[in-house]
Amino acid sequence: MKELLVIKLGGNVIEDDRELGVFLERFAALPQLKILVHGGGSLASELAGRLGIKQHMLQGRRITDAETLKIVTMVYAGWINKTLVAGLQKAGCTAIGLAGMDGNLLLAHRRKTGKTDYGFVGDIDRVNGLLLQHLLEVGLTPVIAPVTHDGEGQLLNTNADTVAREIARECSREYNTRLLYLFDKPGVLREAGNAHSVIETIHASGFEALKTEQVIAGGMIPKLENAFEALRAGVARVTLGRAGDLQALLEGHAGTTLTNE
Amino acid sequence: MKELLVIKLGGNVIEDDRELGVFLERFAALPQLKILVHGGGSLASELAGRLGIKQHMLQGRRITDAETLKIVTMVYAGWINKTLVAGLQKAGCTAIGLAGMDGNLLLAHRRKTGKTDYGFVGDIDRVNGLLLQHLLEVGLTPVIAPVTHDGEGQLLNTNADTVAREIARECSREYNTRLLYLFDKPGVLREAGNAHSVIETIHASGFEALKTEQVIAGGMIPKLENAFEALRAGVARVTLGRAGDLQALLEGHAGTTLTNE
Repeated sequence: MKELLVIKLGGNVIEDDRELGVFLERFAALPQLKILVHGGGSLASELAGRLGIKQHMLQGRRITDAETLKIVTMVYAGWINKTLVAGLQKAGCTAIGLAGMDGNLLLAHRRKTGKTDYGFVGDIDRVNGLLLQHLLEVGLTPVIAPVTHDGEGQLLNTNADTVAREIARECSREYNTRLLYLFDKPGVLREAGNAHSVIETIHASGFEALKTEQVIAGGMIPKLENAFEALRAGVARVTLGRAGDLQALLEGHAGTTLTNE
Repeated sequence: MKELLVIKLGGNVIEDDRELGVFLERFAALPQLKILVHGGGSLASELAGRLGIKQHMLQGRRITDAETLKIVTMVYAGWINKTLVAGLQKAGCTAIGLAGMDGNLLLAHRRKTGKTDYGFVGDIDRVNGLLLQHLLEVGLTPVIAPVTHDGEGQLLNTNADTVAREIARECSREYNTRLLYLFDKPGVLREAGNAHSVIETIHASGFEALKTEQVIAGGMIPKLENAFEALRAGVARVTLGRAGDLQALLEGHAGTTLTNE
C-alpha cells in the first residue's frame, strides 16, 4: 500500500500570510501522496459581521441559516480554498480545490437531532474515494473545503475535522493513511497554557481517564473523539500539533500521537 | 474525434432559481461531453454594495482592486460555482467545480496596457487541456469559474467569455468542439429590442460591415470578436442565444451562428 497523508489545517495559520506561505512550501515539498483539508479561521465570522448578519449560537455551536451558509461557502470554498491552491501552485505542487459537491466527493444529509435545528449543517454519508484516487494518480493534490451537499441541490456546512476524518477513513481502504490535525497548540496539553506539557501519546484506553480527570476538556474532546474514530476505522496513525512543526510531527518528534492500544 | 460542447452561461438565468433549475436539467441531459463556464451576473456588484466597497469603472470596465478580487473569487468560485455543481449533481450530472488555479487550469498574467491599470485582471497564457481531458474521460463535467492565477500565488479576475473561448480553443486539439454563448437575448439582433430580428448567420467577412453599419455595437463587439477568434483557432462552430433555447440552439433552429467563410 502506498502512503497517504491527510492533513487538516486549522487555526490562525490560515489568516497569517507569512506563516501560511511557509506552511504551503513545506507541505508542497512532502514527497508522499497528500490531501489538505482546511477550515476557515475567523474569516467567515468577520464577513458576517461586516454584512450585519447575526451569528446565532446554540450550546456553543453555530447555527447555519441560509445567509450563513452562503458566507461559509463563499469564504471556505471560494476565497480560502482558491488562495491555498494558488499558493501551492506557486510552491510547485499541482493542487486542485474541491468542496463536497465537486465530483460528488462528500454526500451528506441535513442533521436532525431531536428538537435542535442547527440549520444547514450536514453529516457525511459517503466519501467518493474513487474520485480522490483518480486525482492522486494523475499527480494532483486535493485541497478540500468543508462544504458538502445532499444530492438534492442543497449545500451543507460540515465540520472540517469531521471532513478530514471521513476522508482519511475512506482512503485507508486503498492507502496506508496517516491523519494530521494542525492547530494553534503544540499538541494536547496536560496543563492548559503550558506549551511544555504536551502529552506525547494517548492510548484509546487512557482517553476516558484523561476526560474524567478533566485533563482533556472543551473543544478538545470532540476533536480527539473524531481522531480515535478514524483510528478505529483503519487509519494508521493520528497526530495533533502545530502547523509550524510539520516535519517534526511527521517524524514523531513533536505533537500528540493517538494509538489504538 | 469525439464531440465536445463548451457552454458559457451568462446573463440573468444565474440569478433566477427556477430558470436556472430548468437550464441545469437540460444541460445535465445532454449526451455529449461538455464543459460549463459561468459568469456571476450582478451578484458580485450586489455584495460589493452591501460591504460598502466602491466599484471603480474605467472606460466601461470594472477595476479589480484587492477587495473586489476577493469578492469576485468568493462569489464566482465560491457561491455560484458550488451552487451550479450541486444543482447538476441533483440533475444526475457528475460535475466538478474548478477555477483557473485548480490543477493549474488557467495560467494568466496581470494585464498591462499602457498607462491604464485595471488592477488584478488576468489575460490567459495557457490552458491545461490535459487536465480537462483527464476529467472528461472519467465521466466528470467541469464547471469553470472565471478566476485565474499567475503561478506566483496571485489570483486574477478574467472575463468569462474569454475563459470559454480559450478553453474551447485548447480543447479543439482533441475534440470536435462547439462553443455556445448563452445570454439574455435570442441571438445577435439586427434591431436592438426586436427579438424577432435575430441574425441567423454571421460570416467572418460580413462582421466588419455589420460593425461599420453599427448593427453590431457596444458590448456585443468584444463578445463576437471573442467568438470569431475561437473559430479561427479551430473551434468547429460558435452559436449565441438564450439559455432557454438550449436544444434549439444545438439543433440550429435558434440563435446566431458564426461561420468562418
